[in-house]
Amino acid sequence: MKSDKLLGAIEIGGTKIICAVGNHDGSIHEKIRFPTSTPDENIPQMIDFLGGYDIGAVGVGTVGPVNIRERCRDYGMILACPRKAWSYCRLWESLSSGLNVPVSVDSDVNAACIGEARFGAGKGKQNVLYITVGTGIGIGIVIDGKPLHGMLHPEGGHSKVERYPGDIMQSACRFHPDCAEGMASGTALGKRIGGRGENIPEDDPVWGIEAHYLSQLVRNCMQIVSPNVIVMGGGVMEREFLFPMIRRNVVEQLHGHYIWGESEDMDSYIVPSQLGGDQALKGCLAMAADTFGHPSCPL
Amino acid sequence: MKSDKLLGAIEIGGTKIICAVGNHDGSIHEKIRFPTSTPDENIPQMIDFLGGYDIGAVGVGTVGPVNIRERCRDYGMILACPRKAWSYCRLWESLSSGLNVPVSVDSDVNAACIGEARFGAGKGKQNVLYITVGTGIGIGIVIDGKPLHGMLHPEGGHSKVERYPGDIMQSACRFHPDCAEGMASGTALGKRIGGRGENIPEDDPVWGIEAHYLSQLVRNCMQIVSPNVIVMGGGVMEREFLFPMIRRNVVEQLHGHYIWGESEDMDSYIVPSQLGGDQALKGCLAMAADTFGHPSCPL
Repeated sequence: MKSDKLLGAIEIGGTKIICAVGNHDGSIHEKIRFPTSTPDENIPQMIDFLGGYDIGAVGVGTVGPVNIRERCRDYGMILACPRKAWSYCRLWESLSSGLNVPVSVDSDVNAACIGEARFGAGKGKQNVLYITVGTGIGIGIVIDGKPLHGMLHPEGGHSKVERYPGDIMQSACRFHPDCAEGMASGTALGKRIGGRGENIPEDDPVWGIEAHYLSQLVRNCMQIVSPNVIVMGGGVMEREFLFPMIRRNVVEQLHGHYIWGESEDMDSYIVPSQLGGDQALKGCLAMAADTFGHPSCPL
Repeated sequence: MKSDKLLGAIEIGGTKIICAVGNHDGSIHEKIRFPTSTPDENIPQMIDFLGGYDIGAVGVGTVGPVNIRERCRDYGMILACPRKAWSYCRLWESLSSGLNVPVSVDSDVNAACIGEARFGAGKGKQNVLYITVGTGIGIGIVIDGKPLHGMLHPEGGHSKVERYPGDIMQSACRFHPDCAEGMASGTALGKRIGGRGENIPEDDPVWGIEAHYLSQLVRNCMQIVSPNVIVMGGGVMEREFLFPMIRRNVVEQLHGHYIWGESEDMDSYIVPSQLGGDQALKGCLAMAADTFGHPSCPL
């Protein structure tokens, strides 16, 4: 009976929040968006919208870091983050008491990876790794249908990259002088060219620098996690000519090692998102659906 | 009834092979070792030894790469590797027909990680990452009690590291000019000093270089996989003074980011193996025990 109910999805980004109602098959029926401001303003907006439907559960994908440790008192609480108003926001508590349904919380990138794994470019694959390259860089991992958790969610966007020869740009990450996000996020790209990445022509040498950094991240994720497919999304990856550049660079770095199974065909191993920007929302719907069968649902 | 039976364990290394019989609790009753030569010589030795006991199943941890894809015709086959005689050796087929019991095969490092996760330094942790630093460098990952598989097993020892300033040594890895194994394995360490690592005094500056490389690998594994604990073993890690050097270097690299949960106490986050060299064998016993309950056992 419950599986017939509508499900809620909330994607919390740094600049906008999207709420949707849909179904366990990933279909989205209604969707609204509003600017990210403060929890005091935004959480009632989420509750207002979703409260208008007869929903059975809600999945939330949020910019992190966020506590996703099952059965923990602070489950679903945003941790210290650059956005002061959101630091230590008890997201799960506010939403589950406001909506009175099970609420499942994960990082935005894990949610996007769940979306791709269930409904998109990772469908049918055992081990799916998703990389988003937008304002920041994030990675999410889904293994046997479940998002990878541990100490926290992955924060692989902050893993180390070696500088492109002669690149002296200061990192765009306030923590790391040498991480993928600091050198290759949309923010870093804008900083490097002193403008907006959308306008950079395809033949600009800056794309070689971008591919240099992204391919290092891809290589390290590949060798450490051994995914069956690597899906890349986010604003920067809409420049599709980056895909062949990254694939070529990864193959060069591997020097014939670890080219096996799926990675023998790089064109179908390192692939664009298939869900046109809805990957996180669809992942949130799947997370909501999972609360019905999930033994460690926090409610 | 079956769980009362003895279990077999086989650890196949580059220079020696260890066979053991033991129990599902990781206890080892008998153990023999012989030099690694060729499958034609070594496989009958394994079958001779284990065939002398009434065992219920066998777990094998082998130097890779090895096909560990469930239900695959070539499951348990060694893939192309530097040791010619072992390339394409049908390990699973030879052992399971020779011993007539279920045989479970994984990489040596995944086996060691299973050992630590079940019986050692990773006991009770959800997401355990094991790094061995010996002749080579390998990583294994166990999540919710299961080894991480995907395209293949992890090969994170070959992930990228940035050179120590001024280090011009040629990589000891024949594939990669820039991987952790090539710059920081026991082999690389020996090459760097032109001798045997065991004899290098603790105050030699070479350890600073070693810690530089290992801490990059640890940082990347930590940020990409978010393990609850990182266990380090292998010959090089017997030099215990490396642990505080690596911990300090990782903390410096994180710059305050991602210090959360277990990683707040680095002394208990990056830890030595607790199984005194038997981690892979004990992991193999656990793999053997798992065949009784594992739905995708290939037999």
